[in-house]
Amino acid sequence: MSILIKNGHVIYGENLEVVKADVLIEGNAIVKVEKGINESADTVIDAAGKVVSPGFVNLHTHSPMGLLRGLADDLPLMEWLEKHIWPKEAKLTREHIKVGAYLGALEMIKTGTTAFLDMYFQMDAVAEATLEAGLRGYLSYGMIDLGDPDRTEKEIREALREMEAIEKLNSDRVHFVFGPHAPYTCSIALLKEVRKLANEHGKLITIHVAETMAELGKIQERYGKSPVVLLDEIGFFGSDVIIAHGVWLDSRDIQILARDGVTVAHNPASNMKLASGVMPLQRLLNAGVNVGLGTDGSASNNNLDMLEEMKLAALLHKVHTLDPTVADAKTVFRMATINGAKALRLNAGVIKPGYLADVVILDFDRPHLSPMNDVVSHIVYSANGNDVETTIVDGRILMLDGEVLTLDEDRILDEAEKTIMELA
Amino acid sequence: MSILIKNGHVIYGENLEVVKADVLIEGNAIVKVEKGINESADTVIDAAGKVVSPGFVNLHTHSPMGLLRGLADDLPLMEWLEKHIWPKEAKLTREHIKVGAYLGALEMIKTGTTAFLDMYFQMDAVAEATLEAGLRGYLSYGMIDLGDPDRTEKEIREALREMEAIEKLNSDRVHFVFGPHAPYTCSIALLKEVRKLANEHGKLITIHVAETMAELGKIQERYGKSPVVLLDEIGFFGSDVIIAHGVWLDSRDIQILARDGVTVAHNPASNMKLASGVMPLQRLLNAGVNVGLGTDGSASNNNLDMLEEMKLAALLHKVHTLDPTVADAKTVFRMATINGAKALRLNAGVIKPGYLADVVILDFDRPHLSPMNDVVSHIVYSANGNDVETTIVDGRILMLDGEVLTLDEDRILDEAEKTIMELA
Repeated sequence: MSILIKNGHVIYGENLEVVKADVLIEGNAIVKVEKGINESADTVIDAAGKVVSPGFVNLHTHSPMGLLRGLADDLPLMEWLEKHIWPKEAKLTREHIKVGAYLGALEMIKTGTTAFLDMYFQMDAVAEATLEAGLRGYLSYGMIDLGDPDRTEKEIREALREMEAIEKLNSDRVHFVFGPHAPYTCSIALLKEVRKLANEHGKLITIHVAETMAELGKIQERYGKSPVVLLDEIGFFGSDVIIAHGVWLDSRDIQILARDGVTVAHNPASNMKLASGVMPLQRLLNAGVNVGLGTDGSASNNNLDMLEEMKLAALLHKVHTLDPTVADAKTVFRMATINGAKALRLNAGVIKPGYLADVVILDFDRPHLSPMNDVVSHIVYSANGNDVETTIVDGRILMLDGEVLTLDEDRILDEAEKTIMELA
Repeated sequence: MSILIKNGHVIYGENLEVVKADVLIEGNAIVKVEKGINESADTVIDAAGKVVSPGFVNLHTHSPMGLLRGLADDLPLMEWLEKHIWPKEAKLTREHIKVGAYLGALEMIKTGTTAFLDMYFQMDAVAEATLEAGLRGYLSYGMIDLGDPDRTEKEIREALREMEAIEKLNSDRVHFVFGPHAPYTCSIALLKEVRKLANEHGKLITIHVAETMAELGKIQERYGKSPVVLLDEIGFFGSDVIIAHGVWLDSRDIQILARDGVTVAHNPASNMKLASGVMPLQRLLNAGVNVGLGTDGSASNNNLDMLEEMKLAALLHKVHTLDPTVADAKTVFRMATINGAKALRLNAGVIKPGYLADVVILDFDRPHLSPMNDVVSHIVYSANGNDVETTIVDGRILMLDGEVLTLDEDRILDEAEKTIMELA
């Protein structure tokens, strides 16, 4: 299988240089980026006037939560969780979660996300939907034991069950990740066991850390230290750990994350909507911490649109620091592409020969993207997910000119409506 | 001319109640909103599964600035203005501005804006483009005299010239508005003369006020008071005044604005991108000030998408106050519709018999707007301008199912590219 994308404006290499060129994909890799490639290919896409970009890496989400989109907004975090989200989630069956996973996958394909790091339940069902959709899924079961040893054991059993089920699918595109929920919902015993199991099985770990001031208070009260210091002291960190949020970090925390090569997945929409706070982006970047970008779940965003998320990231940090030069367009674009891929140890997020063919094409023939003064600026500051018209993952076309090829869009939207009626 | 919109989910009345109903438009007004309207109409639109919303009112923009979109980002305000924006603007001819106005109008129609309050130069050219586009334009010439009496007179002459030219067009859809740029760029003499002329001619006034801390410093140094107190003391304010930004307002300023019925046009994207600061939305609303929503120009946003602007407004104020209950979806939706219309003394922004037929239809058959748990929440938190598929202004269809009927889209995009090359 080969794909030749002709005459696009290509966002090339790590420096995001915009060049008019053709892109040749063979198998699952980008093999050539040059003007006037003459080789024949199984599929030729005319991208004249369009933009060829690396696909986006959503580094923190709960993809099936699209089902709960808009069910409860404008509420304090604990009221939102306890009165709305958790009661609904308690009713979710494996089938419901699979419907949610299809909805999430469909939304990601349509908005140019090619890989995502997920945390939810029944991740083997999410894996099946991801495989069918054609996306790259890094899938963690969210473990919560609340300090109860019986639950610790149960959660580890469930994680290992889901790991095995996902490994049986035997695909390069779906990966199990360990996902202890957070330091305030997981015991030290669970966290230590996860670290050990991740080493044993060679898996990544993702965990919510320092999302809210309330969490900081709880951990301080229970352990007399910050969540990051706590995790550091039990030997939890490594370059295979991706912490979500990292809003409330002090200088010592940042030093630890930098020293251990931990990645932070920044979620501006969710941190803003739930009023969690503003993460110290500039200080993290200055310390050399790898920072990726995520949408969080659709109940607290309320979508999975990485283009919107880039704009939010850029704008939030400018106003928060009162410095318009921070979080510039290229920095934020890298967070949403290369940095995310790096965290997932995925050879993607860059358009250049030798990288995996996770590529999207955006239609720039639209008033809000015209004139084409600066392609990367337009993607960050003016585009949205609806501007993506073609999505390619692992050398396979998942959406072509707005038409999703791998999933039945009408059926998925119907089932989402039916499911939410069942849950009412 | 009549239009019947069948079977949509209608956002009805001032309380934004969502009802399944038909909407009948006769001439330029909404005449009936009911289930199962049987009357015949010149045009029947099937809106099953779609959402029928009031059109959006962009209460502060510089619509021709789309031409400069993305030319300079991530810069301090004065460097951005002095090194990039002003040098380009100095080269703009009437023809360039008209191209920019067409581009802006096209983008507004496509993203569901039905009325806008504009400030730029050569507004008679903008008026011609607005008339052709079919939008409602409230058009102000941005007056700047920098304290030079010769310039004062020249600016007033130019404003009156543009007023006359716009009035000659003799349309209910285009209106001249007085637009002294800001207290720091206009002399007291100019501001007083504008107030007098606005009374004489029965026109609205719009002006940038308290946008940046730098402005506050300048006015304090020059006059020993805040910009709002200054304007109050010269008798400038009234319910016909719309101030843009209002970022740096103290309690006394807010009292003055409330007392005089002044409207504030909030521009979250621009205030964030230029790192101007966060306006005191909650305190303004609590004081009873009418607050509308604007995108500002595309050079500091970088688009005219009012749906994106609503999300930014909601999210910014939640995180800034660390209170997720402020700037809830309905409050922000009203800012973008009813409140803007009220400021413009326009009987629109609401779907209800007796209001002007400024109506948009959104396609909700999309993964990011599914399931349809809450229509207003989805519009504020998950939709974007690309989800608008039909735009009706003054009872006339400007866009139907994504196709703009009043303007030649390809020609406008071509001319925008050509114009920016000329200016390079």
